[in-house]
Amino acid sequence: MSKLKNDLFLRACKKLSVERTPIWIMRQAGRYLPEYRKVREKADFITMCHTPELAAEVTIQPVDIIGVDAAIIFSDILVIPEAMGMKFDMIESRGPVFHHPLRNEADAKLLKRIDPEKDLKYVLDAVSLTKRELNGRVPLIGFSGSPWTLFTYMVEGKGSKNFSHVKKLIFNNPQLAHKVLELISDTAADYLSAKIEAGANAVQIFDTWGGILSQNDFEEFSLRYISEVISKVKRKEEPVIVFSKGVHFKLEELAASGADVIGLDWTMDLGEVRKKIGSKVSLQGNLDPTVLYAGKDKIKEEAKKVLNSYGEGSGHIFNLGHGILPDVDPENAKALVKFVKEESKFFQSKDAETQR
Amino acid sequence: MSKLKNDLFLRACKKLSVERTPIWIMRQAGRYLPEYRKVREKADFITMCHTPELAAEVTIQPVDIIGVDAAIIFSDILVIPEAMGMKFDMIESRGPVFHHPLRNEADAKLLKRIDPEKDLKYVLDAVSLTKRELNGRVPLIGFSGSPWTLFTYMVEGKGSKNFSHVKKLIFNNPQLAHKVLELISDTAADYLSAKIEAGANAVQIFDTWGGILSQNDFEEFSLRYISEVISKVKRKEEPVIVFSKGVHFKLEELAASGADVIGLDWTMDLGEVRKKIGSKVSLQGNLDPTVLYAGKDKIKEEAKKVLNSYGEGSGHIFNLGHGILPDVDPENAKALVKFVKEESKFFQSKDAETQR
Repeated sequence: MSKLKNDLFLRACKKLSVERTPIWIMRQAGRYLPEYRKVREKADFITMCHTPELAAEVTIQPVDIIGVDAAIIFSDILVIPEAMGMKFDMIESRGPVFHHPLRNEADAKLLKRIDPEKDLKYVLDAVSLTKRELNGRVPLIGFSGSPWTLFTYMVEGKGSKNFSHVKKLIFNNPQLAHKVLELISDTAADYLSAKIEAGANAVQIFDTWGGILSQNDFEEFSLRYISEVISKVKRKEEPVIVFSKGVHFKLEELAASGADVIGLDWTMDLGEVRKKIGSKVSLQGNLDPTVLYAGKDKIKEEAKKVLNSYGEGSGHIFNLGHGILPDVDPENAKALVKFVKEESKFFQSKDAETQR
Repeated sequence: MSKLKNDLFLRACKKLSVERTPIWIMRQAGRYLPEYRKVREKADFITMCHTPELAAEVTIQPVDIIGVDAAIIFSDILVIPEAMGMKFDMIESRGPVFHHPLRNEADAKLLKRIDPEKDLKYVLDAVSLTKRELNGRVPLIGFSGSPWTLFTYMVEGKGSKNFSHVKKLIFNNPQLAHKVLELISDTAADYLSAKIEAGANAVQIFDTWGGILSQNDFEEFSLRYISEVISKVKRKEEPVIVFSKGVHFKLEELAASGADVIGLDWTMDLGEVRKKIGSKVSLQGNLDPTVLYAGKDKIKEEAKKVLNSYGEGSGHIFNLGHGILPDVDPENAKALVKFVKEESKFFQSKDAETQR
């Protein structure tokens, strides 16, 4: 890690001592930034994902503008299904819409077994290019959707309220579900390994839809494959973060998945979760993203509650409990980052680690 | 309760001994029933709510057809905002859309202080009529949205993903939010009292949007007003059920709200929650509603897991963890009810109550 000028994020992932709490923001390379929207005027979302120069440009924007302690490569979790042969359109305000959702054995047979080094080369190129352009300022995070979350998108085909299609499939044809989840797991592991090889300093697995499952089904259809991906990712000291939205249960099991860091949404109590699993993993989160709609005093008050909730010592990466919203004022994001950088010094001390 | 032929539901609410676990299903009077759709062909959703004869007819359908142990009056939580002057359209597959959402002081000033006995007389008439037609077969449940949930609909004006409007309002103008929540609380308490007066044997408060709040905000903006409603409802032995979807936290506080029963969504572990608060309140729930998409064997297997999770003794009301979905086969709902009625006998015994 010696080549990095700021490795606070990586140290916190490993619970090594830090001078202050590192902060980054999910979806920090996004529509709330006028600089991002300017790039977006030139190209649609999918073209941006496919073009390393544009992806690198927007990835670095929040490092320059907002002052975050880590960059996360601009991309989309759906590049994996896309490479496997499932085309989709990204429709503003509606999200992704797949041309042909996966519903049965015949649909599953059409899935291509891909080689990320070849079929997702454009992402790896974006990672290498971004890494060069960051020039060691902050670490770069790569990411993938969890197998369950990718599977859910592939089966539903678009945003859903009740997730009827994917639930019908797991209850009525669990064999097919497991077969496809296995294939996605292998692909996601190869993909994350390739990103690390290309220069990513850490990887995050987004399990956006883990929370729609009952506790038993979460273990069977989501957690199991998250663990499988982590065990198969080729890495040296690069940490793995798992963000399982809405998963307030099975925290001990998540902490035993092989992940170094567990990301929490804003309905969780950071302090309580630390008591449960904080000796095994670091924690990332968890300010309510809508707090950034408030005035600066309220933002500071709420950010301080998050710092207080985690308490003293390393092992906390400040973040929102979900992605930053597109209509947030960038000045508010800046104010949050500035405040956390200053205030968190009081939660860290040279011997903080031994105090724990 | 002596006039009721089947008072299992009411006894379970009070943790009195029962021969078997009672079952009813949220949204049991709904689109999954062909008999309901036939009535719906004659009148739109809002007209059905406004017409006591139609409301009574569809309320009783699931008692006859599915065999549930309680009826819940067919209505909508938005009748309160409607009576307060906020008109809305109910758009199939999109849900309610208010003509003028509540966003500021001026909007709030337009809200009428209503008298449910007069302004919501049609609901009370539906309750009395249904009560007569049920003729003591099963208890009748009345309901209201929680103040927070009604407020959320009134401010957002329609379904929402990020709840930006209501969050902006509580963070930037909490005084206004509290003023309106106070008014809604008084109205909801009067409304539930009037329903009990008209014959409802129990009432349920639906806190559909409690789970979008952080833990502190839930206490300040939702739980506080739920407790206020419960303390103001005029009742004798009629139990109050609180269903707070997505609220996996503050369970002890919910159990201390004055509610007799806490309803749980399907992500909760019934047995664990019973250990925490089962000595204070009964529990209702919590089969994943999408399990009804499965075959009958799977439905039975999953229903048995729910019974096992609660374990022996009274204090459990079987239900889904959310409303039944419109595309479920009614035969599957029937199979669930039949199975729970038979199987749950093994979880109850004459001295079950003293065993606990």
